Amino acid sequence: MKVGFAQFNPKFDAIEENLSRVEKLLENVSSDVIVLPEMFATGYLFPDADYARKLAEPTGDGQIFYAMVRWAKKYDCLIVGGFPEIHNQKLYNSSIAVQPDGKWHLYRKIHLFDREKLIFQPGNIDYEPFEFRGAKLGMLICFDWIFPESYRVLMLKGTQIILHPSNLVLPYCQKASFARAVENRMFIILTNRTGSEKLDEITLQFTGGSIIYSPRGEILAKASENEETVKVVDINPAEADDKNVTPRNNVMTDRRPEYYRYLIEKK
Amino acid sequence: MKVGFAQFNPKFDAIEENLSRVEKLLENVSSDVIVLPEMFATGYLFPDADYARKLAEPTGDGQIFYAMVRWAKKYDCLIVGGFPEIHNQKLYNSSIAVQPDGKWHLYRKIHLFDREKLIFQPGNIDYEPFEFRGAKLGMLICFDWIFPESYRVLMLKGTQIILHPSNLVLPYCQKASFARAVENRMFIILTNRTGSEKLDEITLQFTGGSIIYSPRGEILAKASENEETVKVVDINPAEADDKNVTPRNNVMTDRRPEYYRYLIEKK
Repeated sequence: MKVGFAQFNPKFDAIEENLSRVEKLLENVSSDVIVLPEMFATGYLFPDADYARKLAEPTGDGQIFYAMVRWAKKYDCLIVGGFPEIHNQKLYNSSIAVQPDGKWHLYRKIHLFDREKLIFQPGNIDYEPFEFRGAKLGMLICFDWIFPESYRVLMLKGTQIILHPSNLVLPYCQKASFARAVENRMFIILTNRTGSEKLDEITLQFTGGSIIYSPRGEILAKASENEETVKVVDINPAEADDKNVTPRNNVMTDRRPEYYRYLIEKK
Repeated sequence: MKVGFAQFNPKFDAIEENLSRVEKLLENVSSDVIVLPEMFATGYLFPDADYARKLAEPTGDGQIFYAMVRWAKKYDCLIVGGFPEIHNQKLYNSSIAVQPDGKWHLYRKIHLFDREKLIFQPGNIDYEPFEFRGAKLGMLICFDWIFPESYRVLMLKGTQIILHPSNLVLPYCQKASFARAVENRMFIILTNRTGSEKLDEITLQFTGGSIIYSPRGEILAKASENEETVKVVDINPAEADDKNVTPRNNVMTDRRPEYYRYLIEKK
């Protein structure tokens, strides 16, 4: 199975321009899965909820979604990316995975970062993998990375590949994802964006460095901090089913949940 | 508070020789806490349980323990290290932290590695920090590292500093501990050993690289792969109480345990 990321510099509040740029980036790409950044079509630094609401679209219905459907069909590829979702009048920082047949899977960011708390509702859907072409895929968004529980739940539910659209402003996650890959024996496709955004006194400089890890922590592909690029690698998702680190050790069955109760007792 | 590690090459089944070597290593050391490797006095590669039983000692009573008591008193320092413990006829891969007043704290390795499963009982004591000189310290041993749950439980119980005696044969943990430090905002003192051990066709090459991380993932001290060395750094344990990564984000209170239930439901 071929999987990849598309790293670029989305422009704030320029949906059509961003969609055209992705269109160009994807030209001639051949892959089963492509992961775009968080908020890839709208940009990130919304002044307030009202502004975000103007750029948001209903689940599975809007120009961002229909562009993704078009690409998925054209490239016979699962297209994954982040967008501001409006559902029952509420805003979510969401990621959607759109199949070539138009079927889609949704994730709403469970751990909101910084000013997102002023704008979005925290995610309200359980971590749950879905199947595509025989592989089990699970979505996270950006700041979810600092909570190892997120990956762990997806791993325990059989996820082989983490799809991780991001807008990272620190370079920690790219490095820490090594631990996530190795401790869970999963593939990780971390897509970050490049460039910067400004709002009044706030300037965010995004750190690029999109990266794909194997379940053994090998780097299969990596982008630099600033390049706009698509990288695709060929993987065997079933490698992620082997949870053994020695013939006697297995990161799934060696767990001792009776000693982990505090993880859910303590808020 | 001054904290450090002592990395060296223990010789298998040579307790007195190993104790003398630690004695020499510690000469002129000034620290509040020193962490020695896992099985620092006995070596690691026990042919079988009977052999381990001969080298094991009862909790808080044996030549390894009394040497630690002597060092703790002489250097006015908490001495932490791993030893084969025998308790109610059962063997454990344990770590003990001995105070200058002779009081001690015990941890029994919860996640056993490879052949340890043929020799030791899995640990049966909850992850629980203890106080020393106003700091909250928690112990892990070697392979516990691949289970982020271990650190997380200790973090949620207020641990500021992880004391981590190890006998690592891969270089993964030294690197992955960056994620552990940052995701939990804790100090980590990871002590590994050097050298190698042989048993029939098995050869273990230990990877050294003992390392101290700050709660922000900075490397405060690091040993090379092969050197025998003590390194001590001055830290403020209270830095680990600041769980904020932004003014609006806190790795403790931003957790959403209602989405983590699977961590203890699923074995």
